[in-house]
Amino acid sequence: MAKQEEKKFVTHITPRNEDFSQWYTDVILQSELVDYAPVRGCMVVRPYGYAIWERIQQEMDSRFKATGHQNVYMPMLIPESLLLKEAEHVEGFAPEVAWVTQGGNETLTERLAIRPTSETIFCAMYSKWVGSWRDLPMKYNQWCSVMRWEKSTRPFLRTSEFLWQEGHTIHETPEEAQAETMQMLEVYREVAEDELALPVLVGRKSDKEKFAGAQATYSMEAMMQDGKALQAGTSHNFGTNFAEAFNIQFLSREGKLEHVHETSWGTSTRLIGAIIMTHGDERGLRLPPHIAPIQVVIVPVAAHKGGVMEQCDAVASALKAAGLRVKMDDRDTLSPGFKFNDWELKGVPVRLEIGPRDIENGVATVFRRDTCEKSTLALDTLATELPALLEAIQKELFEQAKRFRDEKITDAHTLDELKTIVDGGFARAMWCGERACEDQIKELTNASSRNMPFDQTPIGDTCVCCGKPAQKLIYFAKAY
Amino acid sequence: MAKQEEKKFVTHITPRNEDFSQWYTDVILQSELVDYAPVRGCMVVRPYGYAIWERIQQEMDSRFKATGHQNVYMPMLIPESLLLKEAEHVEGFAPEVAWVTQGGNETLTERLAIRPTSETIFCAMYSKWVGSWRDLPMKYNQWCSVMRWEKSTRPFLRTSEFLWQEGHTIHETPEEAQAETMQMLEVYREVAEDELALPVLVGRKSDKEKFAGAQATYSMEAMMQDGKALQAGTSHNFGTNFAEAFNIQFLSREGKLEHVHETSWGTSTRLIGAIIMTHGDERGLRLPPHIAPIQVVIVPVAAHKGGVMEQCDAVASALKAAGLRVKMDDRDTLSPGFKFNDWELKGVPVRLEIGPRDIENGVATVFRRDTCEKSTLALDTLATELPALLEAIQKELFEQAKRFRDEKITDAHTLDELKTIVDGGFARAMWCGERACEDQIKELTNASSRNMPFDQTPIGDTCVCCGKPAQKLIYFAKAY
Repeated sequence: MAKQEEKKFVTHITPRNEDFSQWYTDVILQSELVDYAPVRGCMVVRPYGYAIWERIQQEMDSRFKATGHQNVYMPMLIPESLLLKEAEHVEGFAPEVAWVTQGGNETLTERLAIRPTSETIFCAMYSKWVGSWRDLPMKYNQWCSVMRWEKSTRPFLRTSEFLWQEGHTIHETPEEAQAETMQMLEVYREVAEDELALPVLVGRKSDKEKFAGAQATYSMEAMMQDGKALQAGTSHNFGTNFAEAFNIQFLSREGKLEHVHETSWGTSTRLIGAIIMTHGDERGLRLPPHIAPIQVVIVPVAAHKGGVMEQCDAVASALKAAGLRVKMDDRDTLSPGFKFNDWELKGVPVRLEIGPRDIENGVATVFRRDTCEKSTLALDTLATELPALLEAIQKELFEQAKRFRDEKITDAHTLDELKTIVDGGFARAMWCGERACEDQIKELTNASSRNMPFDQTPIGDTCVCCGKPAQKLIYFAKAY
Repeated sequence: MAKQEEKKFVTHITPRNEDFSQWYTDVILQSELVDYAPVRGCMVVRPYGYAIWERIQQEMDSRFKATGHQNVYMPMLIPESLLLKEAEHVEGFAPEVAWVTQGGNETLTERLAIRPTSETIFCAMYSKWVGSWRDLPMKYNQWCSVMRWEKSTRPFLRTSEFLWQEGHTIHETPEEAQAETMQMLEVYREVAEDELALPVLVGRKSDKEKFAGAQATYSMEAMMQDGKALQAGTSHNFGTNFAEAFNIQFLSREGKLEHVHETSWGTSTRLIGAIIMTHGDERGLRLPPHIAPIQVVIVPVAAHKGGVMEQCDAVASALKAAGLRVKMDDRDTLSPGFKFNDWELKGVPVRLEIGPRDIENGVATVFRRDTCEKSTLALDTLATELPALLEAIQKELFEQAKRFRDEKITDAHTLDELKTIVDGGFARAMWCGERACEDQIKELTNASSRNMPFDQTPIGDTCVCCGKPAQKLIYFAKAY
């Protein structure tokens, strides 16, 4: 990739404390995760970025299947009349829909929306497929892209088109729908924390912040290094809202026609943005080993010297046989020093340097990307030691991020306190439950409510905003 | 699925020889592969159909990666100006493009096409990414859906939106581009024949039938049970056509600016249609074991009797441990007879029936879907015998289809002969190479040229149509 390489020699990454936003842009472009597309607000996901997405997909999809979900594919176009059926839903999405009005050379009699989300089309099909309680539950998911005509966009965080998965399920009882909503929130938390090393706060959204058409929305919220929140996944319980609008009825065990209880839940390529902004440092990405497309990169030193390439190849084979994702960097036009920078920028968790002196000593030099520390390991122990080292790195990245986040969550008892806290972290506060207070907080501090944790142990009696009796413990933060 | 089940009891599948087209529709709907969508010409791929697609994806994707390709994601919208850059390409695709003209509440200043295929956007990005010969080759693929505004549509065969993969590669030399084109054609042939049990004819398309903008198109052509051809995959060599239109240049080893040599290649959910129309019979689907989502279904007989469910569960566990895809049909509201029909309709390769008498005899009754024959196997040998049986079924389905096809390929020496042959098979004929003859054959027989095999051993000296000296051996057939 000569053109990029030449560029990299003369560019640098903006320090995070100088301009976090520019740091993000520098990192995603220079690490070749993504590029701007010749279409307003859309992104091109390059091989390295897409490989991370494939890893995330595998972690999610295997859990969806293990919990009894099946994948399907629904059309990307939704007739306007279908989108209009559920009132709140339309109101929420209509302003950001891209409309197809011409097909071939004909002008369409009805506009077609490119799906901003697929509740309406799932509902149309469910109403056709469901007969009796024996047909329930139906637990479907799809992997696709959706389109939301956003005004200001940033790759992975907010783009007009993005990749995601959307689960849509229908159930016999409200209890089952609620259990499903909670189960998928827990699946999301598990993937985020155990695989992506992203500590998240799970809880229920306020009515103001819930999904258009939902009875209740739950989310997981991650904290970025600038102290801002990133909503990393949502799980919705619709109750019978959509079922009533779309007439999805079933014959109950008692022989009565009843509406189904419905859920939906989604995560997207936003998660890649969360990984970058949680773990990245001045040298670029730091990828958690579980989702790193390359876990170990081998850089030969003095590759032209006898035996070096042979030793590197032998190590690569042994590590692959041990189940690791290994890359051998045998590019012969680049210096080891350039390669070191390149793979640090790309966030590969472990780098092995193997040169004549290492071989003489029977070792490899081991560079940990998380701590940027070097050590040595005996060549014949690499295949047994590195899996454990990768697990240690995975754990360390999570713990680091969790410490960082926990230090930046602060209790706010007054609006002034809240305003200061959300300048670089999350405020935990008591709230009266009224939308007026959320609106006022947003206006005064630019922070929005994130979610209400399940552990509602109060930290005071009165609303942080209006001083009236508090109903809920809730997080506020500025958000992506 | 009570609603469907009740329906199935009163419906039947139209016999193939009565109305092959209606047979196809009956099978795809009743086996719940697919459903019609509330959008003109689009399809809903249901769980069972999507599971087949996932199997095909895995077989393809692992081979793409093994041959050095990487997955990416390009935006689904293409500005009209970009689509217009390569003249032949526009001409080929413009009549069937769906256009986005409104985003949110604004009218766009330039129409955006929903991708009918992504050559133009790959080219735009390649021109940005390529600097010197060191950057080459770039070998990318994407899994996505595309939109072509078709006038008449049939699920899997021709729909406005369909799922596919499209590979796009750029190379330093014409030889490398040609080698890539041939390599991917061979990957397609291998997946089709070895995994989908579809015998295919590979060869080069005529200029009339090649892809809009290609220098040469190669295809694999399968024969359906009505003797019609189905183009099941294509691989294109663009030469420098697109590179010149999009200015994709690189600094060569000699220090000169040169255009890259480009390929693209694609397969789609059409392959599912090919599987259905190649292997299906009066009872429904017959799925090749390699891509069957369920390879073995276990139906308990007299399930309420002591020990039956326990024995079925034990067999299911043993088969899963042996790596098979197993389904235990424990639905308690349906009779074994109903279940037999249901799984035969769905084409599951092997059914095990296990009841008290079987258990007493230490056996399971084994039903082969390909031959519809029953036999018995000792319960304790199932885990070792069934993998071999599945391989035998895979082989038998391929051999059956190949015999059928080979019997229906006939040499045509005159137009009259050709016309008769293409009423229920492929005509192999000599051709002068002129488009006028292809057009005339199409007009007189409704058959189009399929492809020119690599083995060009002639079967005559003169063109089947005009009688002038023949240049090429070529297949003609009516086609989907």
